[in-house]
Amino acid sequence: MAPILLLTDFGHQDHYVGVLKGVILRLCPQAVVVDLSHSLPAYQWQAAQFLLQQAYPYFPPGAIYLVVVDPGVGSSRRPIGLRTPWGYGVGPDNGIFTPWFDQADTVVVLNNPRYWRSPTPSQTFHGRDIFAPVAAHLAAGVPLAELGEPLDLGTLVRWLPPSPVRLAQGWQGHIQYIDHFGNLVTNLPATLIPANCQPRVVLRGQGIPWGRCYSDVPVGAPIALIGSHGYVEIACHQGHAAQRFGVKMGDAVTLELTDTIF
Amino acid sequence: MAPILLLTDFGHQDHYVGVLKGVILRLCPQAVVVDLSHSLPAYQWQAAQFLLQQAYPYFPPGAIYLVVVDPGVGSSRRPIGLRTPWGYGVGPDNGIFTPWFDQADTVVVLNNPRYWRSPTPSQTFHGRDIFAPVAAHLAAGVPLAELGEPLDLGTLVRWLPPSPVRLAQGWQGHIQYIDHFGNLVTNLPATLIPANCQPRVVLRGQGIPWGRCYSDVPVGAPIALIGSHGYVEIACHQGHAAQRFGVKMGDAVTLELTDTIF
Amino acid sequence: MAPILLLTDFGHQDHYVGVLKGVILRLCPQAVVVDLSHSLPAYQWQAAQFLLQQAYPYFPPGAIYLVVVDPGVGSSRRPIGLRTPWGYGVGPDNGIFTPWFDQADTVVVLNNPRYWRSPTPSQTFHGRDIFAPVAAHLAAGVPLAELGEPLDLGTLVRWLPPSPVRLAQGWQGHIQYIDHFGNLVTNLPATLIPANCQPRVVLRGQGIPWGRCYSDVPVGAPIALIGSHGYVEIACHQGHAAQRFGVKMGDAVTLELTDTIF
Repeated sequence: MAPILLLTDFGHQDHYVGVLKGVILRLCPQAVVVDLSHSLPAYQWQAAQFLLQQAYPYFPPGAIYLVVVDPGVGSSRRPIGLRTPWGYGVGPDNGIFTPWFDQADTVVVLNNPRYWRSPTPSQTFHGRDIFAPVAAHLAAGVPLAELGEPLDLGTLVRWLPPSPVRLAQGWQGHIQYIDHFGNLVTNLPATLIPANCQPRVVLRGQGIPWGRCYSDVPVGAPIALIGSHGYVEIACHQGHAAQRFGVKMGDAVTLELTDTIF
Repeated sequence: MAPILLLTDFGHQDHYVGVLKGVILRLCPQAVVVDLSHSLPAYQWQAAQFLLQQAYPYFPPGAIYLVVVDPGVGSSRRPIGLRTPWGYGVGPDNGIFTPWFDQADTVVVLNNPRYWRSPTPSQTFHGRDIFAPVAAHLAAGVPLAELGEPLDLGTLVRWLPPSPVRLAQGWQGHIQYIDHFGNLVTNLPATLIPANCQPRVVLRGQGIPWGRCYSDVPVGAPIALIGSHGYVEIACHQGHAAQRFGVKMGDAVTLELTDTIF
Repeated sequence: MAPILLLTDFGHQDHYVGVLKGVILRLCPQAVVVDLSHSLPAYQWQAAQFLLQQAYPYFPPGAIYLVVVDPGVGSSRRPIGLRTPWGYGVGPDNGIFTPWFDQADTVVVLNNPRYWRSPTPSQTFHGRDIFAPVAAHLAAGVPLAELGEPLDLGTLVRWLPPSPVRLAQGWQGHIQYIDHFGNLVTNLPATLIPANCQPRVVLRGQGIPWGRCYSDVPVGAPIALIGSHGYVEIACHQGHAAQRFGVKMGDAVTLELTDTIF
């Protein structure tokens, strides 16, 4: 059975994540439920999109991605479900699934109350009342088309992170994610760097030594490298780069490629 | 197989939660173990009771609720197990299960060492040495009555949160829980509000606009509504009400019902 | 099927733990994966060793311990796997598994790329690219000897915590771990204390009352006792000893045994 992946901003203190699992297990006792993250910054669907993009290639095909970062719960924003070659997405129509739209063969608004927990959902917890039941029914084999009416892709809310901007001698990017270790993940993909080119990464006017792995520099020293996500990353060996540089998500990072014909 | 739910104040840093799962898996390899929360404020069994009450209606019947918030471990406080129509409770006799007593058909003191991990439990970790083994044996089909001697309900420690107090024109309640989002869950149930009545919620002398869902107000603004638990809740749209108002659990909230004949 | 235990310093915010589980489920859909901890202080393999030692006796025989606290990822440090009577260890060769070496009957360097996620692993996330795939293959029944070439035990990196030092009238130890409750776990095992001896525990010049369980003293008061790990522990009843005494891991603790012939 394909696993159900949970990605929320619910945190670990409350009963909210447990309740999602309870609702799923009632409807589909054999379900395999895996936590992707519940410690996203509250309401930050942009971070949820980044994590989702980083995680889905590693899960079994057909997995069900239940993503509830949903400040618009109870408003007119629609609950949606979509099917792609790698699995299903279930969550609010707030842009999180934008990178999946091009390859989705079915998108529905989840408006069939027969597959909700009850016909009168709360106005503040659609994770429990709509999204978790829908995910459980998908896991149990209900076709997506049963769960609601088809939606035109053109009507969906879209959001994508800004792309790097080309400069005379390189690219202007930004920090798109800061992880638990304080590593700064930029939006500059490894593919921007030509073979045999030694790039120069600049953060707040400071050039960061380029390397291959964290321990290429002494403990505490900064290093720029290609991270496990395939983007240029700035880290400190056994340290916390975000604290050291005092930076935050969205801050500028420059990639200079002066050593090659560009 | 009915799942085992874990609710503790053990946190996520240490091996304690993992060890509970290890003990369970040794005794019942097929057990389905679900984390309800381990990030309760340390020693706060009152918060554990609130979370348990919020969660159990959503889990499959027969589930086993292993609740270890237990500052009296090793003292004369008794380890207990109880059976209700919706499942089993296992934990210390410190009041957590009080709301379940009326519907419990069996309550035992867990004093049969045959179902402990060893006949000589530690004095500081009954979760590992008594409660987790008992939960695993229940999941594996051992009847509750085998696990210890029957207890008279009248001898159990009881604790319930204070009820709202009736005022001339409404109710005086308090904040009974603050969640990860900073939302303030009061002890004022939705059923106090008559149909067609527009209530007025007052926190620290400030009237809070009434609404239906968080996005009924601008980002950052406060709102009072019926939360997913069925109680009056005060929130800030995409904000943190507890920080904004500087309040804590137990602080007073007034519900004014002036627009209807009361 | 023997469970796979995860012990990392990845935290709960990012996709890293979820991705480990995805990689495992793709290769071994029936795997039972249990979180031991992901909230270790970053890079502290010493704390990982302590937690591993505390946890493994409670898990089913044959369990697979996937331990990724790995600041040297991508450097020349080797990925290793070992087999003991109680299960398998998989992780970097940085000393974490030292206490297991004496009983290991097989140790290999994990250099067979057929069992990696791909023949070209990243330089920053061997958990995803080498260790998780290896653990999944072990769970699925691949023999350890298939996963790489045998290693001589003498070539492995070793680390063990300092032992207590004998004094004229007792032992000098230190705080080897501070848990979520602020309890101070020393490296002084219960076996140092002769039967019928009332020991005296001294922290920062202050004698700590000896007891049997936390509630032997009033709420807030300090107590020294034998903790659930079998070491002398200093706690505060319903309080946080580490904050109260302002101490940290490594600080000295004295165990005086004056009442017996020593």
